[in-house]
Amino acid sequence: MRAARIREYNKPLVLEEVPVPDIGPDEVLVQVRACGMCRSDVQLLDGYFRPYNDIPTPIIPGHEITGVVHQLGKLVSPAVKLQEGDHVVVAPGWGDGTCRHCLVGNTHICPNVRWPGFGPYGGFAEFIPVPARYLIKVDQRLPFEELAPLTDAGLTPYRGIKKLRDARALGPGRLLGVFGIGGLGGYAVQYARLLGSGSTVVAFARNLDKLAVAKEYGADHILCIKDKSPSDVSRELTQATGHGELDAIIDCAGAPEMLKLAIGLLGISGHYVDVGLVGDRIDVPLLPRVNREQTIHGSYWGNNLDLSEVVALAAQGQIRHTITPITFDQINEHLELLRSGEIVGRVVVKF
Amino acid sequence: MRAARIREYNKPLVLEEVPVPDIGPDEVLVQVRACGMCRSDVQLLDGYFRPYNDIPTPIIPGHEITGVVHQLGKLVSPAVKLQEGDHVVVAPGWGDGTCRHCLVGNTHICPNVRWPGFGPYGGFAEFIPVPARYLIKVDQRLPFEELAPLTDAGLTPYRGIKKLRDARALGPGRLLGVFGIGGLGGYAVQYARLLGSGSTVVAFARNLDKLAVAKEYGADHILCIKDKSPSDVSRELTQATGHGELDAIIDCAGAPEMLKLAIGLLGISGHYVDVGLVGDRIDVPLLPRVNREQTIHGSYWGNNLDLSEVVALAAQGQIRHTITPITFDQINEHLELLRSGEIVGRVVVKF
Amino acid sequence: MRAARIREYNKPLVLEEVPVPDIGPDEVLVQVRACGMCRSDVQLLDGYFRPYNDIPTPIIPGHEITGVVHQLGKLVSPAVKLQEGDHVVVAPGWGDGTCRHCLVGNTHICPNVRWPGFGPYGGFAEFIPVPARYLIKVDQRLPFEELAPLTDAGLTPYRGIKKLRDARALGPGRLLGVFGIGGLGGYAVQYARLLGSGSTVVAFARNLDKLAVAKEYGADHILCIKDKSPSDVSRELTQATGHGELDAIIDCAGAPEMLKLAIGLLGISGHYVDVGLVGDRIDVPLLPRVNREQTIHGSYWGNNLDLSEVVALAAQGQIRHTITPITFDQINEHLELLRSGEIVGRVVVKF
Amino acid sequence: MRAARIREYNKPLVLEEVPVPDIGPDEVLVQVRACGMCRSDVQLLDGYFRPYNDIPTPIIPGHEITGVVHQLGKLVSPAVKLQEGDHVVVAPGWGDGTCRHCLVGNTHICPNVRWPGFGPYGGFAEFIPVPARYLIKVDQRLPFEELAPLTDAGLTPYRGIKKLRDARALGPGRLLGVFGIGGLGGYAVQYARLLGSGSTVVAFARNLDKLAVAKEYGADHILCIKDKSPSDVSRELTQATGHGELDAIIDCAGAPEMLKLAIGLLGISGHYVDVGLVGDRIDVPLLPRVNREQTIHGSYWGNNLDLSEVVALAAQGQIRHTITPITFDQINEHLELLRSGEIVGRVVVKF
Repeated sequence: MRAARIREYNKPLVLEEVPVPDIGPDEVLVQVRACGMCRSDVQLLDGYFRPYNDIPTPIIPGHEITGVVHQLGKLVSPAVKLQEGDHVVVAPGWGDGTCRHCLVGNTHICPNVRWPGFGPYGGFAEFIPVPARYLIKVDQRLPFEELAPLTDAGLTPYRGIKKLRDARALGPGRLLGVFGIGGLGGYAVQYARLLGSGSTVVAFARNLDKLAVAKEYGADHILCIKDKSPSDVSRELTQATGHGELDAIIDCAGAPEMLKLAIGLLGISGHYVDVGLVGDRIDVPLLPRVNREQTIHGSYWGNNLDLSEVVALAAQGQIRHTITPITFDQINEHLELLRSGEIVGRVVVKF
Repeated sequence: MRAARIREYNKPLVLEEVPVPDIGPDEVLVQVRACGMCRSDVQLLDGYFRPYNDIPTPIIPGHEITGVVHQLGKLVSPAVKLQEGDHVVVAPGWGDGTCRHCLVGNTHICPNVRWPGFGPYGGFAEFIPVPARYLIKVDQRLPFEELAPLTDAGLTPYRGIKKLRDARALGPGRLLGVFGIGGLGGYAVQYARLLGSGSTVVAFARNLDKLAVAKEYGADHILCIKDKSPSDVSRELTQATGHGELDAIIDCAGAPEMLKLAIGLLGISGHYVDVGLVGDRIDVPLLPRVNREQTIHGSYWGNNLDLSEVVALAAQGQIRHTITPITFDQINEHLELLRSGEIVGRVVVKF
Repeated sequence: MRAARIREYNKPLVLEEVPVPDIGPDEVLVQVRACGMCRSDVQLLDGYFRPYNDIPTPIIPGHEITGVVHQLGKLVSPAVKLQEGDHVVVAPGWGDGTCRHCLVGNTHICPNVRWPGFGPYGGFAEFIPVPARYLIKVDQRLPFEELAPLTDAGLTPYRGIKKLRDARALGPGRLLGVFGIGGLGGYAVQYARLLGSGSTVVAFARNLDKLAVAKEYGADHILCIKDKSPSDVSRELTQATGHGELDAIIDCAGAPEMLKLAIGLLGISGHYVDVGLVGDRIDVPLLPRVNREQTIHGSYWGNNLDLSEVVALAAQGQIRHTITPITFDQINEHLELLRSGEIVGRVVVKF
Repeated sequence: MRAARIREYNKPLVLEEVPVPDIGPDEVLVQVRACGMCRSDVQLLDGYFRPYNDIPTPIIPGHEITGVVHQLGKLVSPAVKLQEGDHVVVAPGWGDGTCRHCLVGNTHICPNVRWPGFGPYGGFAEFIPVPARYLIKVDQRLPFEELAPLTDAGLTPYRGIKKLRDARALGPGRLLGVFGIGGLGGYAVQYARLLGSGSTVVAFARNLDKLAVAKEYGADHILCIKDKSPSDVSRELTQATGHGELDAIIDCAGAPEMLKLAIGLLGISGHYVDVGLVGDRIDVPLLPRVNREQTIHGSYWGNNLDLSEVVALAAQGQIRHTITPITFDQINEHLELLRSGEIVGRVVVKF
């Protein structure tokens, strides 16, 4: 099969022919029909994760995977109700099934977690073996290029916004800020409306094209932060909404300066959830975090239940997408575009 | 001032002239501009509450009150930011301010609670004294006849749906049933959408006109239960949604048979919130409640914070109303219509 | 192997020789070393569950199972870290692994759940096959007769009290009532102290010997309800604690009259959790449930995580037991004693 | 009356005679009987808070206040049930009563909050005026020197541990770390046991005398971190408990290095609550916070309900104290001792 592989860190992927993988008795061979491209693919290539997990090459990246069931392992349980030809998405975060986190369904934070595209086979290839329990069957009418990004770009902010909702940070009269309108932020804005219980949604970004997407997807206000001081931003926020502080924030970027700006705008008893990993540092004053009783939540990707909820929203027609479909041969050039940060929405490799 | 008073239980109200009430130092005299009529006004008149609280006559009923600040008590704190001419709604449930429930803002379940219209002066009169902290200032552009019902019909299901949301019972792929589409249910359907995080909303009632309102206000499905057996209802539900059970229920009626039907449709791990008080008994099997781990929540009216959130939604234009405005002289005839259960939406007395 | 089986409903168990069961590839054969006897074994025999699930005979009952790993299925994952000779307890409630409840670890409320002793092989026999993921390895120093009841009598009230704690119903100055001091109640009292955050614990029962156990296990107050009216009980409660109402209740019996008494004592904003199944009906007034904003929780048995927490408490020496060990041949006579309700603590069959 | 006042920042307090303050109509004049000394008094004197709130001199510090009701304002409501001679503690954090935070009882994070001892009269004086609703009546048998520190040192970690409990971070088999065993930490260890649901409690500090207090108050393990690297500390933790990471942390210090160490020890899905304000910066890596889904909670002092719960625990005899009583004349020398960080437990000025 064709596969795009990291042969050396910091070098372009090598597009080459490799053998179709075998599957274990409880695995399913999925024919990949589409795979999203994520900023973390660039980070993987650039070695960002190596201090934490130095994955040996060759690596087939790609973790936003959807496709068709090609072959079932011999002992795949009938309870999963899968058969050849079914359309599926791949839930990421394959746990060991026995730890405390797996026991409550959070397989994606299992200490022994395995991620497709980060060691195990990824989706930049024609086939991939997947443990049967990590496949979610989907409505055949949904297009593959829209399904692929739901497994990360469309999943990660969903879990983040759920955390804000479950922390009771959202509701009428509350301001919810969405920071960073890249691949994730366009979805975040939509979930902000769907799960926001009437919160006013304000999108913040440096790029006007991205803010236009946020506006189209339902942001009540958009605010360009490029070349603006924190006090400029707070003043514009007050002009737009009557309030200079935010009650809840989802940060889809995680870049150090934007994080500092965002946290500086957080109000009393505010909740901040970070789902972005552009930077690698939280560096903020302590006193206001404590005496304003603010909460900072880390939220990472999502679990099977989260993904099944996202897929249910998609099946109800409640999710809109900004997709750039590309061919397998265009992977390397689009990794470059992704690195420069100028891609609006999501690039998806179609097979 | 003119007032409509219960002089004797089980007799029509007497419309008569009474003195304008004095106000205490921390009270505000409100000129009533509109007051909603509630089924509980009929129940008060009929003696439903007497086993619990036998209020001596004469009583001025009416607890869905909005109007204009007429006069401020001498020691009303500037912190409440009220002045003569302000438009206000009256938050119900005036607590003693010192009990455990008051300390967290739930003044409406204070053991020493006082309710306007249930002993203290009500809104079926031209003026009413209100403790300053129970007034919420509102946007002057909102019409009084729409504001009045927000303080009970539009508040009570809001708190109920919030309890379902905070119990994490709502979300994509979940079915949320609204039972009883009277004064409260029309609002409940709207909150089901606003707070439902993508839940599918199904309205249940015996009356097709009321169901039409539910459909107009956003119910995904409506289901007439008149003369149908529980298994009929479950079958129709399955036809409409693909599922024969509900994940969450708000019961806006509380009538014994409908309650039994509703609880019989509740699924595993389901949450049921009762905000209706038409009946006076829960009588259901025990085993399925326990081994399906269902939760039954009582939810009563709402507190200041709930009302301020409802008013915020109204100011955003997110709440629609089915209102029948009447004059003061029409009160008694509309109490009769309310007793027979055939009123669609809410009747509001305008001054 | 020897097994005690229901050959006919409403007849004594038949103690007989049956073949040792085969195991599937992901199962483990456990040599049973002890099995607790539960009131639900009597109910099973008496046909209480037949309207819900009419299990065909023969049935090997017994669901409080502990023993030793005898043989591992061929495909049991190394991740479960089990080997022959390990001491284990059997987590009840084997789900299909794919439903919404299984996805968050609540396999015990899976719609396709299977229970050892209720259809699948139970613990009143020398061997039992168990899916590997439902075994929890335990400290070899813990005696088998103490481990067995932890899987139901010691698990069920643990989950119930956790629900009260997580509902924020417990804390200093709050009164927590434990109703029914049979097999479950003796554990409930201990969890009331361990998880009660300083709540005052009051035990209610009809039997003074059982109340003495409650006192010994840490109840602050005990109250015999035999032949007493609700107002008598409330008066005695006030004398003992200064308050006539309870803030939280765990009902370990579920008998109709006791349930009515218990709910009648529940205070404003109170939480009631039912873990007992002696009766089959909730029949209580509606109005106080609603206008006092009370919550009624069903709680059923427990999941893997709950059981692992209970086992952790046992390993810390924090759980005390009232155990009557019996031999295999004494099963039938002790089922009779259990039916009459006079057993103090738990009877455990030792092998 | 005698009062100790800050006349100039960074200078010793001036002990002098000042007039007894007047009281407003809803205030109570309290005769101060004891007032605790807090590290934040030193920080106030040293100007730590001036960038946030530059309080003009003269200032009477002291915010851990208990005493006797001396005189009631003319309009104090009978609902508060206070009379001359009652023993009371002063709940800190006087809100405006109208903001969203006040509406749910969190008056201490009101944007218009006033604090005794930080502008308004403090407790380093013989009398203090207090709004009636911020007084909590206490059992006359409790000694004043033990009551005083309960209003901050004994309140602040209580709220922090409650946040960990309500986040469901505590339970059997979980490790709860208490960092910093100064005035607050000695109480934190006790709450860790009372609210910990069986968590294993580990105390961390640089000072062996303080750790001895932690051990005496119920810590399962103590660990001296002086001159140890993070990996040393993790190794010792593993030796003591079998685990090298903590599931929950309360940081009673807030010093930058200790905070970094503590957060570095936090496990997957861990919760960290900061109640200490020694430092002024959070500076930690981002990635592990996000991909381990950790939550950082700010918790500040406490509200009326928290304090009433703490007082209930004290009345039950469940709180132990490490108190050094001093006289009014010894205030300045003990502020010095406090600055150097070597005080074990709490210094309380007795009148």
